[in-house]
Amino acid sequence: MFRLLPLRSIRNFRSKFLNHNLKTNLYISPGAFKWSSTKLPKNIYLLDDADNEDHVTQSKSNKYTCRTYNCTELRTENVGERVTLCGWLEFQRMNKFLVIRDGYGHTQLLIKDNDTKTQSLVNTLPYESIIKITGTVLSRPKEMINKNQKTGEIEVSIETFQVLNKASDNLPFNIREYQKAKEALRMKYRYIDLRFEDMQRNMRVRSNFLMAMRTYLVNECNFVDVETPTLFKATPGGAQEFIVPTRFPGEFYSLVQSPQQFKQMLMAGAIDRYFQIARCYRDESTRSDRQPEFTQLDIEMSFTDCIGVMSLVQDLLQYAWPNIVKPLHRYFPKLTYKEAMEKYGTDKPDLRFRFQLQDCTDALKECEKLPTTDNFAAFYLVFEEPYVHLSSSIKNKLVQLSQNYAEARLIQSKINNMNDWIAKMSKVFGEKTCSNLHGSIKIKDNSILFLCYGNWKHVLSMLGTVRSEYVEHLELQGHKIKDNAFYPVWITNFPLFEEGKAPGSLQSAHHPFTAPHPDDVNLLATEPLKVRALAYDLVLNGNEVAGGSIRIHDPSQQEFIFKLLNIDKQLMSYMLEMLGSGCPPHGGIAIGLDRLLATMLNTQSIRDVIAFPKTFEGRDPISGAPAPINEHDKKLYSIDISNKL
Amino acid sequence: MFRLLPLRSIRNFRSKFLNHNLKTNLYISPGAFKWSSTKLPKNIYLLDDADNEDHVTQSKSNKYTCRTYNCTELRTENVGERVTLCGWLEFQRMNKFLVIRDGYGHTQLLIKDNDTKTQSLVNTLPYESIIKITGTVLSRPKEMINKNQKTGEIEVSIETFQVLNKASDNLPFNIREYQKAKEALRMKYRYIDLRFEDMQRNMRVRSNFLMAMRTYLVNECNFVDVETPTLFKATPGGAQEFIVPTRFPGEFYSLVQSPQQFKQMLMAGAIDRYFQIARCYRDESTRSDRQPEFTQLDIEMSFTDCIGVMSLVQDLLQYAWPNIVKPLHRYFPKLTYKEAMEKYGTDKPDLRFRFQLQDCTDALKECEKLPTTDNFAAFYLVFEEPYVHLSSSIKNKLVQLSQNYAEARLIQSKINNMNDWIAKMSKVFGEKTCSNLHGSIKIKDNSILFLCYGNWKHVLSMLGTVRSEYVEHLELQGHKIKDNAFYPVWITNFPLFEEGKAPGSLQSAHHPFTAPHPDDVNLLATEPLKVRALAYDLVLNGNEVAGGSIRIHDPSQQEFIFKLLNIDKQLMSYMLEMLGSGCPPHGGIAIGLDRLLATMLNTQSIRDVIAFPKTFEGRDPISGAPAPINEHDKKLYSIDISNKL
Repeated sequence: MFRLLPLRSIRNFRSKFLNHNLKTNLYISPGAFKWSSTKLPKNIYLLDDADNEDHVTQSKSNKYTCRTYNCTELRTENVGERVTLCGWLEFQRMNKFLVIRDGYGHTQLLIKDNDTKTQSLVNTLPYESIIKITGTVLSRPKEMINKNQKTGEIEVSIETFQVLNKASDNLPFNIREYQKAKEALRMKYRYIDLRFEDMQRNMRVRSNFLMAMRTYLVNECNFVDVETPTLFKATPGGAQEFIVPTRFPGEFYSLVQSPQQFKQMLMAGAIDRYFQIARCYRDESTRSDRQPEFTQLDIEMSFTDCIGVMSLVQDLLQYAWPNIVKPLHRYFPKLTYKEAMEKYGTDKPDLRFRFQLQDCTDALKECEKLPTTDNFAAFYLVFEEPYVHLSSSIKNKLVQLSQNYAEARLIQSKINNMNDWIAKMSKVFGEKTCSNLHGSIKIKDNSILFLCYGNWKHVLSMLGTVRSEYVEHLELQGHKIKDNAFYPVWITNFPLFEEGKAPGSLQSAHHPFTAPHPDDVNLLATEPLKVRALAYDLVLNGNEVAGGSIRIHDPSQQEFIFKLLNIDKQLMSYMLEMLGSGCPPHGGIAIGLDRLLATMLNTQSIRDVIAFPKTFEGRDPISGAPAPINEHDKKLYSIDISNKL
Repeated sequence: MFRLLPLRSIRNFRSKFLNHNLKTNLYISPGAFKWSSTKLPKNIYLLDDADNEDHVTQSKSNKYTCRTYNCTELRTENVGERVTLCGWLEFQRMNKFLVIRDGYGHTQLLIKDNDTKTQSLVNTLPYESIIKITGTVLSRPKEMINKNQKTGEIEVSIETFQVLNKASDNLPFNIREYQKAKEALRMKYRYIDLRFEDMQRNMRVRSNFLMAMRTYLVNECNFVDVETPTLFKATPGGAQEFIVPTRFPGEFYSLVQSPQQFKQMLMAGAIDRYFQIARCYRDESTRSDRQPEFTQLDIEMSFTDCIGVMSLVQDLLQYAWPNIVKPLHRYFPKLTYKEAMEKYGTDKPDLRFRFQLQDCTDALKECEKLPTTDNFAAFYLVFEEPYVHLSSSIKNKLVQLSQNYAEARLIQSKINNMNDWIAKMSKVFGEKTCSNLHGSIKIKDNSILFLCYGNWKHVLSMLGTVRSEYVEHLELQGHKIKDNAFYPVWITNFPLFEEGKAPGSLQSAHHPFTAPHPDDVNLLATEPLKVRALAYDLVLNGNEVAGGSIRIHDPSQQEFIFKLLNIDKQLMSYMLEMLGSGCPPHGGIAIGLDRLLATMLNTQSIRDVIAFPKTFEGRDPISGAPAPINEHDKKLYSIDISNKL
């Protein structure tokens, strides 16, 4: 295929890339010099490589630059070509063999024997200096071919060697996978740490994954990408929000913890399919998986339902999932909150391994020797051979953990013979209960039993912890328990409310805009804690990676929920007016991208998928921010520093 | 083409969309019910419409929803189809004809004569209520066909009518283009304002334009989208930055005014082609074209130069420019800062109209009657018939404006006859100078002359203002001066420094990381104000829409520039270390999306291309933010409100 190129272009071109042969020139995008061609004589024809897949791919990362290839592109097909490469000097041997590296890969360079100038230059040049070379591609001698390296069959014989930027002699650490520095040091010098192959992969996979999700939403589903403000008003309830002083004395913005209210306004505003990759802010004690600012893929749709939103997310992830990791199952299973709790003891079940909880409430509920608690329950968990390692250390650890669940008791037993065990238990539960137990608990000899009874929630949460802790323990013992694959699962029918801190008070399990389950609306006034929500979480290998709900669209219902939550409706009057202005039924979801990518790429922490993360304490490791402010700012924003603390 | 669909799906499907015929069902994405199909009997085959362009387009905006079409899709081809539509009740006539509207368009609905139930329902239903109808598509009677409406040839006969959400009876304003409310009211109820056709267009064009730019950068040029922090450290110099208190008493983050430092670190980090659509913050007095938070397309490349970056932006805009507006010229012309000033009296020239300044410095520079000023210059601007309207009102206005330029004088003359004018001027300039003038200024009789002399910068800026103001005046007089098209122009070779506020001090014209022009480096120490920068702005119809530069990559040069700018190098030590760690030569640009879209869509202000803009004063018009904070936050962040002001 032919493309018009103006005459002078060719001249610029030649002068700019003098020592490339014509073939090479063509990798430079024609755009790269059209700017100067406004008043040119009429155009001439020049061959364009667009129909050559391979060359087009190469040109993509090199357009608008002074290199002709990046450091991973050259192959034996290129032998004989005159090329220009730029990158970091990674290594040199005998002042003869160099390795040049960039974000894409490595290429071996060769200094000619008679090129003493370059030899002496390289001899004193620190590694990690930035060099630019032109040279000719040679095929390596048979014995020097490296099949493990993409460019392992070629090397480039240097003709011109230029140092673009010298690196200092003593960098804080080297770019060697086998001697990675401690995280604190890596974070302080993140701009060096990013040169590592795994960080390059993380950053590039992240970018491509986000782009693929956008492509599905925009090109396949006509979603509209809308940027919403981050400087907003405090949301009652929910996480601690950062505040931002303004020139209005005593008045502050809050940094949004999510675009929730704006995206609902967009539904009322006829943007019926909205998404945004949104920056969100929460001032939470930075845990290993939390950052003060983070990104979520935020989605909202009108005229949809739970099925609609969950299906969208499934198709979306299926479409965008990178093929360098294991695939996602085409269909995501679903568990209700109750099922998840009673099978796995958590609403974030890790389905990479079995070992489900089992119910023995009936057997114990009549036992008069037990303290009666609200909604009593008894569940147990069994590990048979070969998973029988109840060492005293793990036993003690589990006892420790069980302390966190005041209203439940844990019994851990290595059972050699069921009858002996029942006999022992009769002292605790009495004869009658134990015969019930005998009927309901079926265990092989030489098994481990974790039995737990008391308050339903405490019992299950405790056994959930036991389940994951004991499996960790087994893996340390050398057992391979967790399947190395992706197990997504939807959790649905969450309770709408939880008990609040103040006795008798309520708080939202999700947020105040979540719609109650239609079948439970009649319970709102009488038994609100029994009301289920039209909410759904997506859990992947035990991590919550997305959460959403159908929202309330009826202003009177929203007002009633505010009342139950003791939220001043005046503060939220604009939301009630919005719902009353003709707001479609709508629902959505937010996908936590940092957590999802960390799970997908199986990194130590979410910090490994974030270019410039904050430390645990929320400090910027490079600049040391936060920092004191000057008097000018204090005056401008009418604030003093108090020492109340 | 065929696609696998599980058996139960079809059942869900039927129950979910009972009153659709099979054809219609197929518009619903199969994904929309797969979720529940984990444990299904083996699959059956079902025809998929994917090969039918038209249907695929339709399905895109309706996937995962309970509607089968949106309100702009139905055509005569659909006559006889059973359809479901959702939207706003816009209008009704005679309890018989309804208009339903959504973000895509309008459809006319018909109530059957015998359907008294729906008739009485509609009779009392407020406009803007949300309704859902199913019905059959009919072709309109000839006399009722509306060629101006996409759906003007059909109407839908209602079979089921459902009110999903009733609107309140008294909304603040109607959705009628011909009676748009005042902006303040529109902003307070933005979620209603967004329903207007023009706001829908602005939001959707913005989304598609951004997506197209991403597509070019990622798919055509292998750029990597990296999210950088917004909570960072204050940057010395530059705009006023918002501050964010933290749990560290007295320590604050600053909200970034751009990702400048992070993107340079990414270059050192081997992400050699970076972009981000970045949220930026500046606490500036909110002018009609400023917002406290705004978005820019932020780009940085390694191993490139001015040509490379400018070419990229040209190709990018060319690729992404929407075809609903006039096209962009393929090549953008270039002017140096000096050329732009001396031809148009501004570095943001509006090339939609001619009238260039002309130089007459030589004629006046020897005139002893004039006060001698630094770098004296004299320029003039001529308007010939039919552009001769020097009314006293405009004359006075220009006199007013000229006051802003202390070191320049303005002469405005209606010249009936050149000789008479020269005679008059001789009193001002003396005989000799006037004869020079006669030689150098060529003007037809009956022209208007604006002559300006004094300090070069003041003279040109003043004439630049005169040029634009007088052209505004001419357009008010009914002349069509500005060509209704897009005139992009690159401005290059800006000065690196400007005089700072303190006498003798310097400040960056762009920012402290901008590289000096290689030819001027020798002037850095001696005549810094004469040093040109490797900086470039893109100006479109008189608006600066992008600005960028090649950056300093040599740590010693950067340190020297900090010194000249009196910036404490300790504050910036991490940047110097970064450059010294092996940082490639690099450069980039930032495109101001709000300004660019407002210019592209020719809106009154940038607020019309932003979903939820702040007011002039920086308030959120919906929630009223900013707002006072509670004692808990004051204590948590160790701040008191001072009354210094």
